[in-house]
Amino acid sequence: MDETKTVDPTEPNSQFRDPSRLTLCRVLIDTYHENVAYLHRDNPVYRAEGFKAMAKVSVRINGQSILATLNVVDDESIVPCTKLGLSKAAFTQLGAEEGHTVSIAQADPPASISALHRKLAGERLQFDEFRAIVRDIAEHRYSKIEMTAFLVATHRNELDREEIYYLTQSMVEAGRRLDWHEHLVVDKHCIGGIPGNRTSMLVVPIVAAHGLLCPKTSSRAITSPAGTADTMEVLARVELPNEQLADIVREHRACLAWGGTANLSPADDVLISVERPLSLDSPGQMVASILSKKAAAGSSYLVLDIPIGPTAKVRSMQEAQRLRRLFEYVADRMKMSLDVVITDGRQPIGFGIGPMLEARDVMQVLENDPRAPMDLRQKSLRLAGRMIEANPDVRGGDGFAIARDILDSGRALSKMNDIIKAQGSRDFDYNKPELGRLTFDVLAPAGGVVCGIDNFQLAHIARFAGAPMVKNAGVDLRYKLGDEVTAGEVLYRVHASYPTDLEFARQACLKSNGFTLGRREDVPLVYVEF
Amino acid sequence: MDETKTVDPTEPNSQFRDPSRLTLCRVLIDTYHENVAYLHRDNPVYRAEGFKAMAKVSVRINGQSILATLNVVDDESIVPCTKLGLSKAAFTQLGAEEGHTVSIAQADPPASISALHRKLAGERLQFDEFRAIVRDIAEHRYSKIEMTAFLVATHRNELDREEIYYLTQSMVEAGRRLDWHEHLVVDKHCIGGIPGNRTSMLVVPIVAAHGLLCPKTSSRAITSPAGTADTMEVLARVELPNEQLADIVREHRACLAWGGTANLSPADDVLISVERPLSLDSPGQMVASILSKKAAAGSSYLVLDIPIGPTAKVRSMQEAQRLRRLFEYVADRMKMSLDVVITDGRQPIGFGIGPMLEARDVMQVLENDPRAPMDLRQKSLRLAGRMIEANPDVRGGDGFAIARDILDSGRALSKMNDIIKAQGSRDFDYNKPELGRLTFDVLAPAGGVVCGIDNFQLAHIARFAGAPMVKNAGVDLRYKLGDEVTAGEVLYRVHASYPTDLEFARQACLKSNGFTLGRREDVPLVYVEF
Repeated sequence: MDETKTVDPTEPNSQFRDPSRLTLCRVLIDTYHENVAYLHRDNPVYRAEGFKAMAKVSVRINGQSILATLNVVDDESIVPCTKLGLSKAAFTQLGAEEGHTVSIAQADPPASISALHRKLAGERLQFDEFRAIVRDIAEHRYSKIEMTAFLVATHRNELDREEIYYLTQSMVEAGRRLDWHEHLVVDKHCIGGIPGNRTSMLVVPIVAAHGLLCPKTSSRAITSPAGTADTMEVLARVELPNEQLADIVREHRACLAWGGTANLSPADDVLISVERPLSLDSPGQMVASILSKKAAAGSSYLVLDIPIGPTAKVRSMQEAQRLRRLFEYVADRMKMSLDVVITDGRQPIGFGIGPMLEARDVMQVLENDPRAPMDLRQKSLRLAGRMIEANPDVRGGDGFAIARDILDSGRALSKMNDIIKAQGSRDFDYNKPELGRLTFDVLAPAGGVVCGIDNFQLAHIARFAGAPMVKNAGVDLRYKLGDEVTAGEVLYRVHASYPTDLEFARQACLKSNGFTLGRREDVPLVYVEF
Repeated sequence: MDETKTVDPTEPNSQFRDPSRLTLCRVLIDTYHENVAYLHRDNPVYRAEGFKAMAKVSVRINGQSILATLNVVDDESIVPCTKLGLSKAAFTQLGAEEGHTVSIAQADPPASISALHRKLAGERLQFDEFRAIVRDIAEHRYSKIEMTAFLVATHRNELDREEIYYLTQSMVEAGRRLDWHEHLVVDKHCIGGIPGNRTSMLVVPIVAAHGLLCPKTSSRAITSPAGTADTMEVLARVELPNEQLADIVREHRACLAWGGTANLSPADDVLISVERPLSLDSPGQMVASILSKKAAAGSSYLVLDIPIGPTAKVRSMQEAQRLRRLFEYVADRMKMSLDVVITDGRQPIGFGIGPMLEARDVMQVLENDPRAPMDLRQKSLRLAGRMIEANPDVRGGDGFAIARDILDSGRALSKMNDIIKAQGSRDFDYNKPELGRLTFDVLAPAGGVVCGIDNFQLAHIARFAGAPMVKNAGVDLRYKLGDEVTAGEVLYRVHASYPTDLEFARQACLKSNGFTLGRREDVPLVYVEF
């Protein structure tokens, strides 16, 4: 059989000539992780209506091209008839200048769509297929619809652990990979979900003071009221050029910086735009997201914190153990040493929730201040001890005491001050933090013992109050699990800097303030090592 | 245990007052089925950045509210600092006027999200849960991300047939339901995928001439090169007010109109914005989509066309039978009579692909023109015959002959002309259709027998040529399956009206022209009744 491949050779137009070009302009709309192209309805060369039903168009200039969703515009002050507008992110991604000529075409589906459809049909994918999908995602060739389809089709038990390894490794390969030229590069990570859990800012100076290399890059908060980068930013600059970061790490063995510009596992950053609104946290995707970032950042030894509790991400020991085995399998395949620590996730860690409040807690611990939250101190020492045991000269079980000595002696504080100074210190007095001046207090309606603090609801209230964008907003806890309170006492104070934020937080508290009071025997227990 | 529900009662602000309102304005951007709200970054009352990470905001005015995705704007000519802009569809949906004051808030997730998460976890849902999800979708409370998650979580075998009935019935209940005040209301539908398949425009006048009530409302093409509404629009007006439509049906027993404004199964129209870009056509969703539309339109007797063939949606008799049983089960639960007809879907029906070309084919059949495509005639008679057998006075098996008599005698043509005149006739001469003047021909590179015509690729080429938006664009076939051709003969001609469209179509043909030539014994056979 022959497939007829030719069109009439006598036709003059048989080579593709691009008859119609448009002038590029930037439209100052921030479409948040989605490329949008704006075309006026009366554009003389392209019939905007004809493109409208298409999911995507391809915008081309000199061999470069990006994909974008098309929005048809009826207002020349947004985009003139003869121009093609691009949203801010799309404009940056195309990398061209205003006034250049571009052409548009219906976008071909990304090359990996057939692999996506195989997964949607319930089939097992090969390494190459994961590579193709992840590359297309990292290069913004998937729409949100396609990314959601990929996430839902790969959640629950849809991926076996071999496939999760393929996915993780593909995510590493799709971006940059740092090489610190040392054999042992330590890092820690928490799977998240516990407000106030700022152990990194204690663990990093402790292990660096011990001499380990710990170049910590962190994310900003996405749905939580503070990330390590947001909190560190209260004390020091965190957005640093790569060269300066490398110098700091060389001199101080550590840093506490934002990892956003490093292009490490870029597919992860793209997928987040879909994962978070959907609150889809499947084990396979969590493993791939965390381990790909760490492998790309050059870490060889990772301590992983899995908190369990009634309102934590992981709610039972059985689930925690299953997750631990999956992390260990994939880490082994990636040739990364992994030490999983299962921790108490029944309530927020420390007292403050929000960047400035959490920075205060951290500095109190470093300063050995008697007001310092003991749970934050203990947890940080435990994690730091496990990291110190990565040092082959340290006996198993000795790490905790070494970490405590470093903290109690002030060497951790001194290391932290070096890091703060190197990154560029900011004006902050932990004794007099300038917290948001608009406040309200949440009171105990009756006496009793605190037997529940809902991590999710407290995070929610702190976010409504303005955290993390408003550094000095958040929640300051006065009581923790097991504490006895009398009617009318302040359970926590909410700080805000803007009246609308205060009102949003107040509304959230009225729905549920997150505290449960009861009898001493109602306090939930967790069976983790302390 | 008590949950503390109060906030400090001594605070003056403990009731929610809305301190900050914005002036509403319309932004003339067509965001295609997605509500978008535009807020200037320097808005004095809302910190746009604080909202940015949120998936959605709720826009409120006098108790009315809509959900929208927030885009942050840096250009006062798009939206001034003190205003809130809404995209065209969102503005219409809110139903307020420019200059009115609105407020915005972080949107609560739709009430049915917990049911969606149960389905994502692989659980079986109850009727009430489907009702809640479908209502939220119909009322635009789901983002595209959430709709995709619902579609992927309910595709393949994720729904049992009882759940498919729940889904279908929920879709009917979420919209309007027509009542024609007659016991027998007939309709036909095809599951789609076959270009040129315009049997409705023949079946409707035939069965109406027989006296059956057939108020046919059709969709416009979404991914195909022509829908019945697009093709009928070549001959007559199809966008008619509901009252006029009812009058026409009362007088002529039939209509051939666009069903878009009737609010029948509105969730279906919303879901399409996600289904189509993803090409996700799962049996359960197909059944729910088709039967909910038909039940809402008041049909009591449906003839359903399931074409099978190598490039049809259904590719084997086994698959067709499975689909038939599912349709029958759900139709029974809905108390609708259903007659499934499995048809030949190996190639396009008729010669023309595109609205005007298909209208020409239809009129040739009605006029008993010797040039008329026999396959379109035969298939239409077969389907019409099955519908006529809905008449209790007609013996099983006699319908075909009755339909043929109505067509051959000119009574079908006369009924069609009545319908055209009643809806408002347009100027169209089927003998001299004014097809797109820009053309190219696709030639046979060698002699042989046509043993494959790819439905999908031919539809694709016709769409690139401009169909259905450009009525006179499309593909005109000269040869069909089993025909013998010699080298250099024209297989088909492509018509366009715009140079860019012609070039796009030419590029598509160069990739693959959709024809396979070979030996007579290579022509695929299908085992369907003719």
